[in-house]
Amino acid sequence: MSSPFADAVARLVPVDDTAAGAARERHARLAKPVGSLGRLEELGAQLAAIAGTCPPPPAEPAALAVFAGDHGVVRSGVTPWPQDVTAAMVGAFASGTASVSAIARQVGSRIVCVDVGVAADLPPHEAVLPRKVRRGTGDIAVEPAMTAAETTEALDVGAAVAAELVDAGARCLLTGDMGIGNTTPSAAVIAAICRRQPSTVTGRGTGIDDASLARKVHVVARAAGRVTGRPPLEVLAEIGGLEIAALAGFCVGGAAARVPVIVDGVIALAAACVADALAPLCRGYLIAGHRSAEPGATAALEHLGLHPLLDLDLRLGEGTGAALALPIVQSASRILTEVATLDDL
Amino acid sequence: MSSPFADAVARLVPVDDTAAGAARERHARLAKPVGSLGRLEELGAQLAAIAGTCPPPPAEPAALAVFAGDHGVVRSGVTPWPQDVTAAMVGAFASGTASVSAIARQVGSRIVCVDVGVAADLPPHEAVLPRKVRRGTGDIAVEPAMTAAETTEALDVGAAVAAELVDAGARCLLTGDMGIGNTTPSAAVIAAICRRQPSTVTGRGTGIDDASLARKVHVVARAAGRVTGRPPLEVLAEIGGLEIAALAGFCVGGAAARVPVIVDGVIALAAACVADALAPLCRGYLIAGHRSAEPGATAALEHLGLHPLLDLDLRLGEGTGAALALPIVQSASRILTEVATLDDL
Repeated sequence: MSSPFADAVARLVPVDDTAAGAARERHARLAKPVGSLGRLEELGAQLAAIAGTCPPPPAEPAALAVFAGDHGVVRSGVTPWPQDVTAAMVGAFASGTASVSAIARQVGSRIVCVDVGVAADLPPHEAVLPRKVRRGTGDIAVEPAMTAAETTEALDVGAAVAAELVDAGARCLLTGDMGIGNTTPSAAVIAAICRRQPSTVTGRGTGIDDASLARKVHVVARAAGRVTGRPPLEVLAEIGGLEIAALAGFCVGGAAARVPVIVDGVIALAAACVADALAPLCRGYLIAGHRSAEPGATAALEHLGLHPLLDLDLRLGEGTGAALALPIVQSASRILTEVATLDDL
Repeated sequence: MSSPFADAVARLVPVDDTAAGAARERHARLAKPVGSLGRLEELGAQLAAIAGTCPPPPAEPAALAVFAGDHGVVRSGVTPWPQDVTAAMVGAFASGTASVSAIARQVGSRIVCVDVGVAADLPPHEAVLPRKVRRGTGDIAVEPAMTAAETTEALDVGAAVAAELVDAGARCLLTGDMGIGNTTPSAAVIAAICRRQPSTVTGRGTGIDDASLARKVHVVARAAGRVTGRPPLEVLAEIGGLEIAALAGFCVGGAAARVPVIVDGVIALAAACVADALAPLCRGYLIAGHRSAEPGATAALEHLGLHPLLDLDLRLGEGTGAALALPIVQSASRILTEVATLDDL
């Protein structure tokens, strides 16, 4: 039986340094001082490297996938939010009334929501893809999040969604997530893969008090401690999450299709660390949309060598930071196509 | 005779703290954790304060005005670029092939270019407003930039353009600038108004070597030294520039029309410091688009108490940093209108 994730890994090629060099050379000839567009010039070179051609193609249309899943670890008291908020927010994505919905409308990105593991039966909706692998994970404080088979299935969901969106025309993918409790497995995955102390990568998420934070650090430490020295796929299964696995598959799927993948905050970055560990060639296709206020995000960004485009103190998730970064990415592409050279003046 | 600038100053009202409070209160009820949209929440409150209503109206359509002028100080060897590049770049704005043209297309802003002081006769073009006050300034190393009457006239040009754009429908204004040599008067104005040492606010602009930088610091120090203790209007006339004066008028004109004004880099920030000194109520209407790589920009941002939305190492001007920030501002407005409350879930 074919596996979308395994197929994507097999199709990965390195980003094209020659095209990146051509983009840098073109930037030096544009009607502006050399280097004066700063990060946009680096980004232009990356987009050329991703597409394997200079100038790079437009980074549009764009598509943002919000992967939704629930987390057994909510039973360990790591968040004040009730689990059924996950399902309620899927309804908000479907009706276009979430924060990321408003931002995506502003920047012209479509949104799909993917139920990869919500712990409730969701009503059918054209904007929600029903790809449930299981109803929420196990409580990573005391048990594995998922089986190996479920982990593979969630990776496949993400890779398949990326391929479907590109087949439907998307030329830039953005990550989104929804899952009450999901900063806890994200911190645990980052601690394990980036080899950081749990206390340094665990944050207040959506806003918890000191006692809850101490409990959360304890849970992250227990979870990360169970996977020391184990391979990344086992880390993901033991202490990850369904949407985290799907997001890892999505990153690899986008890279296999040679489109840029704008990564959102700490949940997406945990997934990107897994993707990078499983398939290192995908790293060159990733663009960090923003620096989340969560400490684990900074650890993951350093681990991946990514420099975020925005730093707006966001800690919402949903893909809000990725969506806000989209016009910067699209502008970086346009500049290489539409701006006159000094010779043209 | 009526003066658009004086009229704008007379019409200025403080931003509305009650509306800002209503926006903060609304944010606390939206379907997301309190504070989780970080800077976007502050920005939403500012937009409500500017409009005097919550939720604020859409920050669109947007209009970016690129004020172009030349600088006699190029004769003192502060830049390697020939002066006629200013006129050539006006041609690029007119034909839509400048860097800011590409970004403005991406983010959906119109652009007008305003010739307030280019040292050349420009061919008529529908996208270029002919408002030339004089053909370039005097060399501020040795003489006044402008007369008092010319300064007033340039302030009027800026205020009038802001009013015309708002009359034509704009609900968000963005600053742009073009003028070979204009980082030198900008540094001088910032040194004088923010009371900073010339060496700490003078940068390499579009890219100059150490010898040119030393010359530039010397020029800035001579210029700033001539205006110690003099009122801001005299500072502007003696060591400013035609586009800097027009941009100051534009900031005040936008504030008088109660629309947000997204300020670009160091040239616009020098102008904003002048506008603030002349008409302090305008400050609440200003949004810093980005932190330019020029050191004077950071000094001006601190002086004005503005926190830039982007930090992308840009140092091009033209309005590129303001244009890149536009979708963030527009998203902040949309969120207060289009996102469900917790009660709606």
